[in-house]
Amino acid sequence: MDNKLTVELISVGTEILMGNIINTNAAFLARECVKLGLSCYYQDVVGDNEGRLTDTLNRAIDRADIVILSGGLGPTQDDLTKEVSAKCMGRKLYMDETSKIAIAEYFVKVGKSPTDNNWKQAMMPEGCIILPNNNGTAPGCIIEDNGKHVILLPGPPEELELMYRESVEPYLKSLISGTIYSKMVKICGVGESKAETMIKDMIESQTNPTIATYAKTGEVHIRVSAYGEDEAAAKKLTKPVVKELKERFGNSVYTTDENVTLEQAVVDLILANELTVGTIESCTGGLVAGRLINVPGVSEAFKSGLITYSNKSKRKLAGVKKSTLDKYGAVSRQTASEMAAGMAALAKCDVTIATTGIAGPDGGSPDKPVGLVYIACFVCGKVTVKEHHFNGSRAKIRNNAVTAALNLMRNCILEYYSEKTFGKK
Amino acid sequence: MDNKLTVELISVGTEILMGNIINTNAAFLARECVKLGLSCYYQDVVGDNEGRLTDTLNRAIDRADIVILSGGLGPTQDDLTKEVSAKCMGRKLYMDETSKIAIAEYFVKVGKSPTDNNWKQAMMPEGCIILPNNNGTAPGCIIEDNGKHVILLPGPPEELELMYRESVEPYLKSLISGTIYSKMVKICGVGESKAETMIKDMIESQTNPTIATYAKTGEVHIRVSAYGEDEAAAKKLTKPVVKELKERFGNSVYTTDENVTLEQAVVDLILANELTVGTIESCTGGLVAGRLINVPGVSEAFKSGLITYSNKSKRKLAGVKKSTLDKYGAVSRQTASEMAAGMAALAKCDVTIATTGIAGPDGGSPDKPVGLVYIACFVCGKVTVKEHHFNGSRAKIRNNAVTAALNLMRNCILEYYSEKTFGKK
Repeated sequence: MDNKLTVELISVGTEILMGNIINTNAAFLARECVKLGLSCYYQDVVGDNEGRLTDTLNRAIDRADIVILSGGLGPTQDDLTKEVSAKCMGRKLYMDETSKIAIAEYFVKVGKSPTDNNWKQAMMPEGCIILPNNNGTAPGCIIEDNGKHVILLPGPPEELELMYRESVEPYLKSLISGTIYSKMVKICGVGESKAETMIKDMIESQTNPTIATYAKTGEVHIRVSAYGEDEAAAKKLTKPVVKELKERFGNSVYTTDENVTLEQAVVDLILANELTVGTIESCTGGLVAGRLINVPGVSEAFKSGLITYSNKSKRKLAGVKKSTLDKYGAVSRQTASEMAAGMAALAKCDVTIATTGIAGPDGGSPDKPVGLVYIACFVCGKVTVKEHHFNGSRAKIRNNAVTAALNLMRNCILEYYSEKTFGKK
Repeated sequence: MDNKLTVELISVGTEILMGNIINTNAAFLARECVKLGLSCYYQDVVGDNEGRLTDTLNRAIDRADIVILSGGLGPTQDDLTKEVSAKCMGRKLYMDETSKIAIAEYFVKVGKSPTDNNWKQAMMPEGCIILPNNNGTAPGCIIEDNGKHVILLPGPPEELELMYRESVEPYLKSLISGTIYSKMVKICGVGESKAETMIKDMIESQTNPTIATYAKTGEVHIRVSAYGEDEAAAKKLTKPVVKELKERFGNSVYTTDENVTLEQAVVDLILANELTVGTIESCTGGLVAGRLINVPGVSEAFKSGLITYSNKSKRKLAGVKKSTLDKYGAVSRQTASEMAAGMAALAKCDVTIATTGIAGPDGGSPDKPVGLVYIACFVCGKVTVKEHHFNGSRAKIRNNAVTAALNLMRNCILEYYSEKTFGKK
């Protein structure tokens, strides 16, 4: 990267210091900084303590061009990020009437009443750029001085992320000469170490664009970022690398758009083909449907879902045969298959997904250990069943099963249409 | 707290600095330190860079009694936590034969061959306490000097956590005089700021035990930690404070056990009363069932669940009357109520929970804005419906609705049994 601006992240709050919340804000901001080509050498966590925060902030201002603080903008006496930052940057606080009105309006919107201490949140450092909070009460701000940029953001992730997207990202982009353009190649169904091995040569020879891999539950994301004089130049540099990644990973790539989730990719595929969908879940107990339904617009396609956790409900609701359950058991290829087909018949839909497995910690046996999950996908009459062996806690096994189920839906729909096209030729 | 030892956590690694992984190690170690009554004032993240790591470590040694470093114990040239720590503490590295044998044995166990650079992992600082790694190759160590304790742990969480449990926790306990005992009072249905106002006097006058509040989605958790000569003494000190909190928050307290989640509390209540349960979800689309089914042992009670996302499925599967849907709409008190009752009849269960609402971002109207959610709970013939107005993203609205649904189940079951008891008198 040609960009030499450095950034330091300071997370303020006792909750992080005491381990009660995991510092996802720092991870989010770090990823965003990487995307912009900013170099981050330090992250700090410090409590709501004037002396220690002053000390940490002064050091950060000294060693970085941009300091992003998160947290400590709340209404209580404890919250002093604004007070300390104003002091370090030689500013006073004043009551900002626009922010005061915005806070009052927020309370009207949520049908609650502000308390006296809420107005503290409208006290802003003199001469700062105010960042409106469209998801809460605390405005953020940017204090600039002497080539240094101190950015204050609220702690709740949904407020921080929206404010970053609306105000901070455009601001940071304005500081950078040239442009960074990045694509996220998202892969499902290939393990992390296998994926890294498959692109080792590309990672080792990277300069511009750079390539970075991120592991998610059952997924690997590869960020390709290029620096160029303008967006077109940067974009041009990413293209051959993204193309190469798509060739190496084939159908395992489900998107190259950062904002598209796996469930979004599945729903897009369903909507594009005017299919209808239903779910029938045992071990994942509603989580596959839960992820699909998180996609806005899914109501066009989603018919209904069943959670058939007991054998009786598998029989009664989904029409799984008693003989199948008796002979093969609830956790079996055959039961999964009958669940998927039964659901398709019941809900009269084109695509169904069925899960049945042993999430643990109990219920395993030598034949059917904890972590064994069968996933069946029905697409327009054809059922495909996959056997999986997952590791870890009950929650981890279930989450891995959900991802595998969404991926199977994707693959089965793609396969159905590729066979159809092939057959027509 | 009477214990004055302080600890600082340093996470070493570019992956955290770039946001590729979330810093769960720091959260784990921070929680464990709080449990032991150690005060943590700073956490740092720094890359595998000699100058910056030396700087960060020297500062930490200066301002804390105990410094715990994680990461950078790998076999590559990049990994230099041991080298830097030895230098800062005035030690040389030597080849530790015991660690070398342990590494060789580990490779035999996992059926792989060590590479030459793996032996670097057996180079240890002179005079240190070696911490065996029973889940990987890199041993950890403790370097003691002049009342300072520098503890080096491997980065992979499953290695770090096992090594902490086996070696570090007993070591830290040996440094501490007396014991810390803590209880977590978990509250649902009272907002964070209201909860804080309700116990402001207790927070302000706290010394031993200390009181700290933590906000979760729809929940507030209050940790009460006391320091005493032994566990019995510490426990005795927490008792009146926990009792006072229970009195102030009444039925909103769902547990005082750190490890019990809201869904666990609901399932415990269901199992204790030998009830059976079913779910019927529209806007939460499977997530209520998903949380309930995350509780091991729920299979005793959970009969089945429905996701009736479309109006048709509400009618066909759950028996909601067409006239109800036509007159009041899918998002209404009446529909929620019929869903809950319909599900109870269909699945023949004692308790059902129904959700219907507008999760957004589209689909809202002035009468029925985005965020409006009706939740109905059926308990043995009686249906209770609550109207909620949630804010934020689609995901946030849905998650808040799930927590509210679980809490309504808890309250309705408690109320049913209290009325029954009262009626008997």
